[in-house]
Amino acid sequence: MKLTLGEIAHSLNLELKGDPSILITGLASINDAGPDQLSFLFSSAYQIHLKDSAAAALVVRAEDAEHCTQPHIISKQPRLTWAQVAAMFDPKPLPNLKLHESADISPTASCGSEVTVGANAVIESAVRLDHGVVIGPGCVIGEGVTIGEGSVLSANVTVYHGVKIGKNTLIHSGAVIGADGFGFEFDGRGLVKIPQIYSVDIGDDVEIGAGTTIDRGALKDTVISNGVKLDNQVQIGHGVFIGANTAISGCSAIGGSTKVGSYCLIGGGVGIVDNIEVTDQVEITALSLVSQSIKQKGRYSSGTGLLPGNIWKRSIVGFSKLNEILQRIRKLESRIGK
Amino acid sequence: MKLTLGEIAHSLNLELKGDPSILITGLASINDAGPDQLSFLFSSAYQIHLKDSAAAALVVRAEDAEHCTQPHIISKQPRLTWAQVAAMFDPKPLPNLKLHESADISPTASCGSEVTVGANAVIESAVRLDHGVVIGPGCVIGEGVTIGEGSVLSANVTVYHGVKIGKNTLIHSGAVIGADGFGFEFDGRGLVKIPQIYSVDIGDDVEIGAGTTIDRGALKDTVISNGVKLDNQVQIGHGVFIGANTAISGCSAIGGSTKVGSYCLIGGGVGIVDNIEVTDQVEITALSLVSQSIKQKGRYSSGTGLLPGNIWKRSIVGFSKLNEILQRIRKLESRIGK
Amino acid sequence: MKLTLGEIAHSLNLELKGDPSILITGLASINDAGPDQLSFLFSSAYQIHLKDSAAAALVVRAEDAEHCTQPHIISKQPRLTWAQVAAMFDPKPLPNLKLHESADISPTASCGSEVTVGANAVIESAVRLDHGVVIGPGCVIGEGVTIGEGSVLSANVTVYHGVKIGKNTLIHSGAVIGADGFGFEFDGRGLVKIPQIYSVDIGDDVEIGAGTTIDRGALKDTVISNGVKLDNQVQIGHGVFIGANTAISGCSAIGGSTKVGSYCLIGGGVGIVDNIEVTDQVEITALSLVSQSIKQKGRYSSGTGLLPGNIWKRSIVGFSKLNEILQRIRKLESRIGK
Repeated sequence: MKLTLGEIAHSLNLELKGDPSILITGLASINDAGPDQLSFLFSSAYQIHLKDSAAAALVVRAEDAEHCTQPHIISKQPRLTWAQVAAMFDPKPLPNLKLHESADISPTASCGSEVTVGANAVIESAVRLDHGVVIGPGCVIGEGVTIGEGSVLSANVTVYHGVKIGKNTLIHSGAVIGADGFGFEFDGRGLVKIPQIYSVDIGDDVEIGAGTTIDRGALKDTVISNGVKLDNQVQIGHGVFIGANTAISGCSAIGGSTKVGSYCLIGGGVGIVDNIEVTDQVEITALSLVSQSIKQKGRYSSGTGLLPGNIWKRSIVGFSKLNEILQRIRKLESRIGK
Repeated sequence: MKLTLGEIAHSLNLELKGDPSILITGLASINDAGPDQLSFLFSSAYQIHLKDSAAAALVVRAEDAEHCTQPHIISKQPRLTWAQVAAMFDPKPLPNLKLHESADISPTASCGSEVTVGANAVIESAVRLDHGVVIGPGCVIGEGVTIGEGSVLSANVTVYHGVKIGKNTLIHSGAVIGADGFGFEFDGRGLVKIPQIYSVDIGDDVEIGAGTTIDRGALKDTVISNGVKLDNQVQIGHGVFIGANTAISGCSAIGGSTKVGSYCLIGGGVGIVDNIEVTDQVEITALSLVSQSIKQKGRYSSGTGLLPGNIWKRSIVGFSKLNEILQRIRKLESRIGK
Repeated sequence: MKLTLGEIAHSLNLELKGDPSILITGLASINDAGPDQLSFLFSSAYQIHLKDSAAAALVVRAEDAEHCTQPHIISKQPRLTWAQVAAMFDPKPLPNLKLHESADISPTASCGSEVTVGANAVIESAVRLDHGVVIGPGCVIGEGVTIGEGSVLSANVTVYHGVKIGKNTLIHSGAVIGADGFGFEFDGRGLVKIPQIYSVDIGDDVEIGAGTTIDRGALKDTVISNGVKLDNQVQIGHGVFIGANTAISGCSAIGGSTKVGSYCLIGGGVGIVDNIEVTDQVEITALSLVSQSIKQKGRYSSGTGLLPGNIWKRSIVGFSKLNEILQRIRKLESRIGK
């Protein structure tokens, strides 16, 4: 892939300062970019790196442009420009728009136009794949699943019966959508399974990471709203509701029937317990445990800071004595008076 | 699916108060249920919702019945009744009891009666599938695996050579049973692999969630006892023993050679380190780390509560000074006397 | 599998004390081993178990030999000897060195000699599989992937386009290599995807556990250096660099663009945030959060110790008051003077 700097600036409708005939073959960070690559100044804090960058050209904000001696494209939002330019250079293979002869497609499944089904994929009965849907090799799509226009499932995704997936949604390999929620009732001897008879309803413009699991509901559908982004190895329990445009980082888990609001940012490895509500625009830092509902937007954390092993060992002893510490301070205060 | 209220009550042998001819088409929670759905009052604490429920009928305890003006079924354990009624309305497709022509089944594998093998599944040599076993599409069952009567593997499950699976066990998609345990020995230059030559032995009535991984043993089999329930994305190390009827929630991990007792409840995201023992009837709350053996039944936790970001930052500074705090208190106490 | 004790000692070039004709059929731990099994004394601390061991023979250090009345092999490193003997008794099926007729192999893929491709595997265009590579059943290998001599992919592994894998690397089932990193930019309404146009570069002698996910990079390749060992369900973000011979235990996650040094030991369930650096020879204990760069080798921890539920509840109240506790101590100190 090769584009001239002029072609790039023109297609983005952005101002170019410098020779439009320079050939660009790819992108890299400001420190790594070579003489045929475009780079980006995402923050004025990194202006110092401009002078040593070997990049052919840079995308910068207007206020940083005067410090840039290389050819540059001026953008109000360099990170959004990055997203657009990266799409031009993406080496991802295009779908081949055919149903592979080794795929097992039920005669009762319906495929819209320009649908791709990869090798050895399995499409069960009554599935509906809309225009432009891509099903990767090795995927298994259960009975009655519907997948909206333009959605893409990478290789080896599993979707259980009855799941609904919206438009322009991307699901990565190893993800499992619609397995049974974890519901049992103790009958005095053992754990009796509660059949998980509802399903999963995924909106438009959702992205679901590799190895992520989203369980079907027991008393209502599990809902992933439009624009939600789930990283790899996220676990969503049965009956959970995730509000629009919320992003959840890798290895986080949301307990059953919990409702998470819109525009939340959930860090990696976070646990949110079952049956609570987290309001809109809440940010949770990595590895925190949310054990109660959060009613006010803002940033929340749990856990302790990282410490060298020997200091940590003494601190965890102190932690177990915190109630005693409070009592001893109260005693001291009462003895020496106010 | 449609059943009359009378048919439901009769099949469960429970008392019905109200018109037995009412048609029921499904289940929902007390607040969500519509006029053709059955609902449940799981706890007297929710009696307040009875009067506004639009449910066609409810399942209630005898002591709540007088507050219920709708038709109702009286049950001593509404949650167990829920499990039974949900099974009546479960839309899960039935297995088709045939070996799919695209499956690759070794001539030395043996299949009992009424076995289902899905499209593109792979059954290696010397596998034994007992009566009624269901192998989903895309599963790979390694050499010499045995699977007991009535067990079901959803699509895209992987089982390594030599694993034993009992009766009526359910394994969800993406689970991997019998991969190598994590065992290496440093030889002064790098990490030398210790071959994991034992296997995994899974009992009867076990459920294993989507994406869960159970490693094979190095010096003995990894054992999952009868009635154990593992949620999604659980990790079980090599040589672990899990006692009967223990339930482990999503994203928890059990380190190698650790023994967990029977009837334990392990929350989500819990870590239990290797080479320890947790006795029977232990409850661990979500995201806790168990770093030593637990010898007494009861409930245990680690971690800190969730705090707003600014308070949390000050608290983690205090945490790192807990040893100093204890010393300063001791000094104060000695100065002002006992 | 049966070997005489003499054959084992001879092949390892180690000294045997006892009858070389004793037949050995397998290995087990010192307490579990039966009269036809070999066992190991890994540490002098377990000498006490020697006298009750029913093992046919033991591998011991010279300094423990006098306490061993059974036949024994003398080794300077019994754990390394264990690794070697286990390899002799490993029942793992050998690859069959053929391309299975049900595999879908692109005509533009190239396979070296003695390559195995399992049933229903999919090999896309321009893939290169070197001498002795094994691709398990159900694997999907994307366009342009290269896999070096002797590397083995177990069943149902997914590798995206353009990924490079070195020699003698082992990847377990359910692993996903090269899915998109988690990169989005908020444009005022929703989250715009940043295409992840770089790839993943995995070295030689690497092991990758079941269900582990390694994302492709956005501005540079994600790099897994030679000799790295990743346990199950590990998550590696885009653009991460892992140094040689580092081992990462199950369910840990490394945030995007973070660099982890060589010879590190990362415990289970650890989170390392994005855009930081961890130097060589750092050890992190299980379930710790690393939220800042670590510049000095050593052992680090975060979190609190496990406590019985009632004590824990009082301690987390104290934790939220740690800033207040410090202030009250300061006040007491100033009131009673130095």
